Amino acid sequence: MGMVHAWNGRKFQIMNSDNQTGQSAAVALEPLRREIDAIDEQLVNLLAERRQRVQKVIALKQAKNLPVYHPSREEDLISKRREQASLAGLDPDHVEELFRSVLRQSRVKQTAQIIRTGVRAGAKVLVVGGAGKMGGYFSRWFAQSGYQVRILEVDDWPNAAALCRDIDLAFISVPIPQTPAIIQRLAPFLPPQCVLADITSIKQAPVDAMLASHPGPVLGLHPLFGPMTSNMDKQIVMAVPGRDPAASQWLVDQFSSWGSIVEVLSAVEHDEIMSIVQALRHFATFAFGQFLYRRQINMARTLDFSSPIYRLELGMVGRFFAQDAPLYASIISATPERRAILKDFIASVADNRELLEEGNTEKFVHEFKSVAAWFGPFCDQSIRESTFLIEKLVERF
Amino acid sequence: MGMVHAWNGRKFQIMNSDNQTGQSAAVALEPLRREIDAIDEQLVNLLAERRQRVQKVIALKQAKNLPVYHPSREEDLISKRREQASLAGLDPDHVEELFRSVLRQSRVKQTAQIIRTGVRAGAKVLVVGGAGKMGGYFSRWFAQSGYQVRILEVDDWPNAAALCRDIDLAFISVPIPQTPAIIQRLAPFLPPQCVLADITSIKQAPVDAMLASHPGPVLGLHPLFGPMTSNMDKQIVMAVPGRDPAASQWLVDQFSSWGSIVEVLSAVEHDEIMSIVQALRHFATFAFGQFLYRRQINMARTLDFSSPIYRLELGMVGRFFAQDAPLYASIISATPERRAILKDFIASVADNRELLEEGNTEKFVHEFKSVAAWFGPFCDQSIRESTFLIEKLVERF
Repeated sequence: MGMVHAWNGRKFQIMNSDNQTGQSAAVALEPLRREIDAIDEQLVNLLAERRQRVQKVIALKQAKNLPVYHPSREEDLISKRREQASLAGLDPDHVEELFRSVLRQSRVKQTAQIIRTGVRAGAKVLVVGGAGKMGGYFSRWFAQSGYQVRILEVDDWPNAAALCRDIDLAFISVPIPQTPAIIQRLAPFLPPQCVLADITSIKQAPVDAMLASHPGPVLGLHPLFGPMTSNMDKQIVMAVPGRDPAASQWLVDQFSSWGSIVEVLSAVEHDEIMSIVQALRHFATFAFGQFLYRRQINMARTLDFSSPIYRLELGMVGRFFAQDAPLYASIISATPERRAILKDFIASVADNRELLEEGNTEKFVHEFKSVAAWFGPFCDQSIRESTFLIEKLVERF
Repeated sequence: MGMVHAWNGRKFQIMNSDNQTGQSAAVALEPLRREIDAIDEQLVNLLAERRQRVQKVIALKQAKNLPVYHPSREEDLISKRREQASLAGLDPDHVEELFRSVLRQSRVKQTAQIIRTGVRAGAKVLVVGGAGKMGGYFSRWFAQSGYQVRILEVDDWPNAAALCRDIDLAFISVPIPQTPAIIQRLAPFLPPQCVLADITSIKQAPVDAMLASHPGPVLGLHPLFGPMTSNMDKQIVMAVPGRDPAASQWLVDQFSSWGSIVEVLSAVEHDEIMSIVQALRHFATFAFGQFLYRRQINMARTLDFSSPIYRLELGMVGRFFAQDAPLYASIISATPERRAILKDFIASVADNRELLEEGNTEKFVHEFKSVAAWFGPFCDQSIRESTFLIEKLVERF
């Protein structure tokens, strides 16, 4: 018994190196461990029973076309369990966390089964760029939900007229720089009542192009997730209304039915927010990873000696570089406004050169405190959320 | 029934706007929901029973001075539950996740109760800087573990001789720039056999100063966590042996007993790794938050439209600015080598100015791919870990 740690390469016994104490304790612990095992077995049995009931709920919801996510039912369920936990001397936060996890799991299962019945199953959907990563992702979701999916790729323009015949939706998923030109090229083939929608991560130029070239319903979309997202549960989709929202309501409903949360805003506000939420953030991550690469930092070694939060931060950088290079390059430099903000950012970073001179700590502390004061209450929330995640990370890895 | 979403400020019913279908479905769901509630109640009862058994295990371990964390027992328990889950048609990964959470919770409780019996309870510990955040944190942990804790603060130097009398450990927790000078000032008062240890986040200068001024046992420590960490479970502490490791083994054991993982390395390697793991990372975070502040970005609004990953990243920035400004200023600019690396980083970021010129996407893509190739297999791991965390974030918030 006793924990063994490496100390300068040699192995040392840490704590309780007395083997006899260890063995007698193990004997004494044995019956308790058997009892705990029995309880754990019952826990899993109950989870399996719960799963059966949830299956029945799914069948019912499916028959009645009810939504998967039912916020007030979930909150009610959680409060009951929190109360019971408190009375039983358990930590209610921890019990809540366990039940949130169970509920999410059942929501994911429900979504996976319910998607097969699309909001407008049978409708014809043309995915332009359907062989790309995002295009392929949504083609699969549409197809699984019972839509008739057609794909228009670079080589298919000679067949454009046939591909567009009688379609209910043209869904544009092509690289940002080509979006307006492809919309113009496609528009003449579209039935007038067909919904024209795009999923580009900027919205002003594409929505303008769609409104200018198609007289029918227009909807700008921007799903805030990538093709690596295994399901759309609670993922955000930004929607910019173009023309005739009632005619494209079914598409919004389809995203809701896939589990997404649809948020509506104007193209201008979308692009302004995204220049920060996407461009600045991605550029900062890019520059960080680029520097690690340029200096050929031994990452494995840094991870050996890293706190969970460093691991998490480096993980975000790794995640970024696992994405599609052209997509991210175009997100970062999509518009002149965006490029101007990033140049300002570069200048702002460089401003700190003098803070790094020896003995300038005071100025640095002053700047730090100004930013901290401005972040204000958001800091508390950040700490709560990130502490929760760090604990998850510690638990798992 | 039916989900309600905002569409341009007006409320629309999404899916199942037919109220009658909704009501009849609710009636049909009712008995199933009651059954699920009953199962959930039993789950919480079992968790409470489990907790009672764990209490008994704690009492036994405490009596026998056994370690809290028992990796092979945990892995064994997890495999049994995974197997049972698979047989019952449940997702074994999800069941593993639930049990890891339950195990962690019980480990935290165990640690909280066991710390009261210190590895060398009764020993006299002088915490220099014990009124500071980190100093106060460790003073509490030592005191709770039965040590006799004394504190030496700025005003206490006239009593230094009395405070140092018969101490077993002098534990230095003062700002980085003052560390060597304070060590020199303290050393003449120390009993020769007393352990001298510091927790500064650089190691070469402090360990050199300790070796030069104290003839007895010397140990450099660097806990990779801050005073906001509620417990030390699996948190990393770097240890740089100075002199006579056998004499300070009990201190290493004490950290293990508090739940920390102690990693041993040389002062040179420590400082090299930390210039990246701490200084570069903190500086990059600082520069990012500083820019948001300078541009007065409406953060609340960006959060309304943010993906879980953005929320997480911004949360890390918020967390950073909630920390102690002088501590982070000194971590960032602790040594000339560190400052040189950060200046290189600034230059590297600025190098990207030309990548942001219009039409330079190709060059950007090329650079992106070089970095991505170098990140290599680490990307996969990052995606697994961060996907797991994003799911947690979606679940909770």
